[in-house]
Amino acid sequence: MTVGVRRRMGVEERRQQLIGVALELFSHRSPDEVSIDEIASAAGISRPLVYHYFPGKLSLYEAALQRAAEDLAERFVEPREGPLGTRLHRVMGRFFDFVDEHGPGFSALMRGGPAVPAGGAYSVETASTTNALIDSVRQAAYEQIIEHLGISEPPARLELVVRSWISLAEATALIWLDGRRIPRAELEVQLVHDFAALIAVSAAYDADMAGVLRRVLADEPADGPFGDLVGRLTTLVSQSC
Amino acid sequence: MTVGVRRRMGVEERRQQLIGVALELFSHRSPDEVSIDEIASAAGISRPLVYHYFPGKLSLYEAALQRAAEDLAERFVEPREGPLGTRLHRVMGRFFDFVDEHGPGFSALMRGGPAVPAGGAYSVETASTTNALIDSVRQAAYEQIIEHLGISEPPARLELVVRSWISLAEATALIWLDGRRIPRAELEVQLVHDFAALIAVSAAYDADMAGVLRRVLADEPADGPFGDLVGRLTTLVSQSC
Repeated sequence: MTVGVRRRMGVEERRQQLIGVALELFSHRSPDEVSIDEIASAAGISRPLVYHYFPGKLSLYEAALQRAAEDLAERFVEPREGPLGTRLHRVMGRFFDFVDEHGPGFSALMRGGPAVPAGGAYSVETASTTNALIDSVRQAAYEQIIEHLGISEPPARLELVVRSWISLAEATALIWLDGRRIPRAELEVQLVHDFAALIAVSAAYDADMAGVLRRVLADEPADGPFGDLVGRLTTLVSQSC
Repeated sequence: MTVGVRRRMGVEERRQQLIGVALELFSHRSPDEVSIDEIASAAGISRPLVYHYFPGKLSLYEAALQRAAEDLAERFVEPREGPLGTRLHRVMGRFFDFVDEHGPGFSALMRGGPAVPAGGAYSVETASTTNALIDSVRQAAYEQIIEHLGISEPPARLELVVRSWISLAEATALIWLDGRRIPRAELEVQLVHDFAALIAVSAAYDADMAGVLRRVLADEPADGPFGDLVGRLTTLVSQSC
């Protein structure tokens, strides 16, 4: 006798559903506050059935992280059209969307190194898995930026500026999450400006980096955001020095 | 009968000696590659005697981290004399000294979230201990900078710039350690310039931050490093736009 209309899901479909439910829960509270019972209840199945698909909370957590990492990496993909600053600004918008959607989970993961589901001891392998995922997302961001700059063999100074700017963006998002005291739209623009500023500082003392700066500014309209920043800074610095 | 001249150490003296020996070993290789046997041998005592002072490698590792954190925080202390850029530059020199001295240990700690001594499972408490130590050092750095700026109640935008710049400095040091492809002296200057640049970007759109920028630049000599940077950037940007 069939009670209700719920159809039976296939194995992979059920796994994907559980990952989605778990990601939703892990995104809104610290992962160690989320229990398997809650995940089962949110998915509308029994606790033993969850264990049928995932050996434990840890493996479900890792699968959810994996999906979140893929989701974030996809948001870095941007058409190669228009000024570089405009492209980066659109990516920053999608990055803050992600941070906004996964706030507490993102915080726990990035602040705690590996975010740790409750339940006592966890293994060195878990820490490696989460760190490898975080590094893969950073690497995806790095590669996208280098591709957009159109540089096939980035010099060490460019690699350093891009990778350290990615850390700056992560830190900025984390600080924003902690109280949201500054409008995110302001920070999305600020990070684009920061990117240009860090390139410029490096470019001031290195000819290769000066070439990179020229590429960054090449297609910028004179009345665009970079032009506006440069105009404001020129005024400010002339008043300050 | 006394063999040799080795005198007997007091408990606290022995603990401090073991911490020093362990820190030296943990600094030069990834902590999971260092064994208690090695620590015992380097300290010239037996393995059981190590366990007499520390219940295991984990507690010795935590004590070594604690000492390293205190050491690093002390290096941030700088007299309130002379231009701010010059003070920050001296601190950057001592920061890179520390990173240089503790290279692999610093990398393992910062990259792996909590650096994990070998030996199977470790506890959530360990991860919290190491993260709390890292956060305490970041907080010390933050407080020093705010004090040097002479600001008693930092606005949210200043807090964000200073804290995110600290992340930038960490990332820069880690990238430098990975191959040392850029002279550290160059990066020490660059980070000082980056600090001013990030303040300037924020200052371009916020009156409070414009006030902070004026403080940063106030005592800078016209022919000092900031003046040089501004001159070079003005030339570069006028050529690029």
